[in-house]
Amino acid sequence: MMQFSEAAAIAEAVQAQTLSAETLVTQVLAEIERYDARLNCFTTVLAEAALADARQVDQAIAMGRSPGSLAGVPFAVKNLFDIQGQVTLAGAKINQVNLPASQDATAITRLKQAGAILVGALNMDEYAYGFVTVNSHYGATPNPHNLNHMSGGSSGGSAAAVAAGLVPLTLGSDTNGSIRVPASFCGIYGLKPTYGRLSRAGAYPFVASFDHVGPFGRTVRDIAMAYDVMQGPDERDPVCSGRSPDLAVPQLDRGIEGLRFAIADDHFARGLQPEAAAAVQQVAKALQVVQRITLPEAARARAAAYLITASEGSHLHLPRLRDRLMDFDPATRDRFVAGAMIPASWYLQAQRFRHWYRDRVRAIFQTVDVILAPTTPGVAPPLDQKTLTIDGQEVPLRPNVGLYTQPLSFIGLPIISVPIWLPETLPIGVQLIAAPYQETTLLRVAAYLEAAGVTTAPIAPLAALPA
Amino acid sequence: MMQFSEAAAIAEAVQAQTLSAETLVTQVLAEIERYDARLNCFTTVLAEAALADARQVDQAIAMGRSPGSLAGVPFAVKNLFDIQGQVTLAGAKINQVNLPASQDATAITRLKQAGAILVGALNMDEYAYGFVTVNSHYGATPNPHNLNHMSGGSSGGSAAAVAAGLVPLTLGSDTNGSIRVPASFCGIYGLKPTYGRLSRAGAYPFVASFDHVGPFGRTVRDIAMAYDVMQGPDERDPVCSGRSPDLAVPQLDRGIEGLRFAIADDHFARGLQPEAAAAVQQVAKALQVVQRITLPEAARARAAAYLITASEGSHLHLPRLRDRLMDFDPATRDRFVAGAMIPASWYLQAQRFRHWYRDRVRAIFQTVDVILAPTTPGVAPPLDQKTLTIDGQEVPLRPNVGLYTQPLSFIGLPIISVPIWLPETLPIGVQLIAAPYQETTLLRVAAYLEAAGVTTAPIAPLAALPA
Repeated sequence: MMQFSEAAAIAEAVQAQTLSAETLVTQVLAEIERYDARLNCFTTVLAEAALADARQVDQAIAMGRSPGSLAGVPFAVKNLFDIQGQVTLAGAKINQVNLPASQDATAITRLKQAGAILVGALNMDEYAYGFVTVNSHYGATPNPHNLNHMSGGSSGGSAAAVAAGLVPLTLGSDTNGSIRVPASFCGIYGLKPTYGRLSRAGAYPFVASFDHVGPFGRTVRDIAMAYDVMQGPDERDPVCSGRSPDLAVPQLDRGIEGLRFAIADDHFARGLQPEAAAAVQQVAKALQVVQRITLPEAARARAAAYLITASEGSHLHLPRLRDRLMDFDPATRDRFVAGAMIPASWYLQAQRFRHWYRDRVRAIFQTVDVILAPTTPGVAPPLDQKTLTIDGQEVPLRPNVGLYTQPLSFIGLPIISVPIWLPETLPIGVQLIAAPYQETTLLRVAAYLEAAGVTTAPIAPLAALPA
Repeated sequence: MMQFSEAAAIAEAVQAQTLSAETLVTQVLAEIERYDARLNCFTTVLAEAALADARQVDQAIAMGRSPGSLAGVPFAVKNLFDIQGQVTLAGAKINQVNLPASQDATAITRLKQAGAILVGALNMDEYAYGFVTVNSHYGATPNPHNLNHMSGGSSGGSAAAVAAGLVPLTLGSDTNGSIRVPASFCGIYGLKPTYGRLSRAGAYPFVASFDHVGPFGRTVRDIAMAYDVMQGPDERDPVCSGRSPDLAVPQLDRGIEGLRFAIADDHFARGLQPEAAAAVQQVAKALQVVQRITLPEAARARAAAYLITASEGSHLHLPRLRDRLMDFDPATRDRFVAGAMIPASWYLQAQRFRHWYRDRVRAIFQTVDVILAPTTPGVAPPLDQKTLTIDGQEVPLRPNVGLYTQPLSFIGLPIISVPIWLPETLPIGVQLIAAPYQETTLLRVAAYLEAAGVTTAPIAPLAALPA
C-alpha cells in the first residue's frame, strides 16, 4: 500500500518537500499496474503525462513557487470528463470514433491548477445510464472490498479507485445518484453539490438539468479541498455562473451546534434492508436526531425523474440510436429506445410536478438544515444478482438501487453520502441533504461524524486479493 | 352607423363633453342588438354593466375628475379573458360548468382604469386552437365584409366586431397567429406585442410560452392608445415583469427616417396567392424597400411550433380529454388527442431547435429594424372551403392559414398586421416584424403607412347586409 493515501497529507508532504510528487506518482502508477487488471477501475492510464506533471510540481516547489493546495495529489476522473488529447468515451463503444478532446474539462483544469496530477480515466456505465458499472464494452468494475460484489454506478470506477487506495481523489457525475450510489457501495465519501455549483463544461452530458459533477474521497477534508478548488463561475457552463465560492475547508471544524436535523420518513423509511436502517440510525444517534420529516410525494418524484431522464437521455442519443443501435450496451439500449417513445404529455406532467415538488421540498428547509436518508436500499449486491426484495416484493435490482437517490436528484439539492461500516458486512452510505448552496453545512456535519468515528472509509486490503 | 367609430375620437368627444359615454354605449348596444344575430361576434353582451360604467365616466367628467385617456371608449374581449362574475368560456362548451371569474383579467382592468367601457365577450375557436372561428358550440363568426367568408381565428369575434364597427377596440390572444390572421382577413390592425410585454393574467392559457394578448383596432392610434394603457409589469403574470413602459402614442408621428427594412424571402415568398404578394409589394413600395432577408429554416420553425403547441396544449387539456372527450369541438378534439401522443423526443427536439432559431433570427435584427412578410397566404376564404392551393399543392386549409404567422410566434417577436385593400377583393394583411420590445418602431411604421393611405381599415357596410 502507498505510504500516503490521503490528499491533504500528500499535499502537505509534497509542499514540505518530504515527498516528491514524481516519487508518489511513480508509486501510484505501479499500484495501478499491479492491481487494476483485477479491479478494472481505469480505462485509460496517463503515465507519461502524469509523471511530467509531477516533475513540474516538484520543480515549482524547488524554485520557491506556490505549488497549490493539492500539490502532487494524484487524481483520476470518470471517463466522461474531457481530457485534452483523449477521446471522451462516456462508457460507450460508439464514442471511440470521436475526435480527441481539444481541452480539459473545467473541473480537471481547476484541480490541475491547484497542483493535482491527473493519472487516468475511470470506468462507468454506458452514457452514465446505470447504477452498477457493469459495462459490456469495458467490463464490470467490482467492489474493492469484495470482488464478487458491485461497486455501484454509474461512477463505479471513480468510487472503486478511491476505495482501493489507488488514488486519493476522483471525480464522478451524478444525474440520478451516480456519485452517491457507488460511494455507498464502496464505503467512501461522495459529494453531489448543488445544481449549478460546479462547472460541467467538458463533461459529457446526460440530462442537462439534472447533471452534476462532484468529488469522491476517503476523508471529508479531501472532499472539501477538491470541492473548494473547483468552485466559482465558469463561462463555459452557463448554468454555473455568478455564485461566489463558499469555501468549505476553513469551516470544517465549526461543529454542528445550532443545526436542525431530521430523518426522512415515508418513502425513505420504507423498503430498506436492515443494514441501511441501522446505518441511518447510527448517524441519527450520533447527531441526536429524533425529528422525522416527510418529503411529499417522493415516490412520484422518483417516477418524474425517471420520465424526464428517459425522455431527455433518449433525445440526446437519438442520432446514435438511429445509426448505431446495436453498438449500444444491451443494458442501456432498450431503455433508450423505450425512452424515445414516451409521450410528450407525460414529460410535461413530470416537469410540472417537478416545479411543485421542488418548491415543497425547499420550504422544508425553512425549519430543517440537514435531512438524513439512506443512500441505497442495502449494501453492494453480488455482481450477478438480478433482483432486490423491497417491501416484500421482488423487483429488478438495477433501477431500484436508486430508490433513495433519485427522488432528490432533479431538484438540485446538495447531498453528501457518508460511509458507515457495520460489523461483518460491506459498507453502506447515508445521505446528508441540505438546501441549495449549503454544501458547507453538509461538509461540517460530515467532518463531525468522521471526527466522532461514526463514519470512516478504510482502504480495501488489496494485498489480500486473490491473484 | 355610429357617429363615432374610432377610440381616439370617442375619448376626445367624451372628455370634451360633446358626447356622453352613456349615449354612445346605448347606441353601441343597439347596434350589437341589431346586427350581431347575423355577425355572431358576441357570446356575451354586458348591457347593464356597460351602461353603469358609462354613467360613472360621465359623472366623473361632470365632477371635473380626470376620466382617463380612453374615456367612454366601448371595447370587448375574446371570451378567454376573465370578466368578473362571468364564466370564462374560452370557446368551449366544457367550460360552461366552471365558476364565474372572481376578478377581471389585468388587460381589462387597465383598459377600464383608463375609462374604457367593457360591453361584452367575443367568439373564438375552441381553446384558441384554430385559425377560422368556426365553433361547433357557438357558431361561426363570418367576415363582416362578406358573410360567406371566414373572419379568421382564433380571435375571429374580436376582429369581426372591430371590422363591423360594433366597437372600436377589442382584445384577442395570439399563440400561433390568432391575432394576426383575423386582422388580415377582416382588414384591420392587430398587434401581437413582444412575449412578456403585456400581462396575460386572467387570460385562459393555451401554450404558456407562446401566449400573447393584444389589441385590434381600425387605426394605428387606437391600437397604440390601448397598448399604452395595458403596458407595465404585473405581479399576477410572472412573465410580464420589470420592463418599463415604452409609450407608443407620443412617438407615432416620428416617421420612418433611419429605419432599415427588409422583405422576408424564402419561406415567406413561397406559396402565397397573388393578393398576398401584391399587398407585401404595396407596403414595400411605400417604404422603398428592396432588400430581402432570409429567416433560416422558417418551415422547420413552423413544424417546431406545431409540435410544441400540440404537445403542451394537449397536456393542458388532458383531464378534460379524459373526462369529457365528446364535449370537445370536433375541430379540436382529434388534434388534442393526437397531440397527447407525440413522443417527448420530438418535443425536446422542437424546443432545442427553437433556441437555435430564436438566436439566429434575433441576430438578423442587428442589421434590420423591420421585416415585411405576408400575414396570410391569401384573402379570407369562403366559410365552406376545405383546402388551399399552396405551391401548386392542394393542402388542408385550416392549418395552412397560419403558414406565415406560425414561424414567428414562438420566438416572442412583436408583430403588427396592417390592412391592405386591393381592388375588387377582400382585404389582406402584411406583417411588420421587429426585434423584441420594439413595438414602438412597428407602430411608427404602421402610422406612416396609414398616413400615406397605403393601409386603411374601413368599416364594413352593415346597412347593406341582407336581412
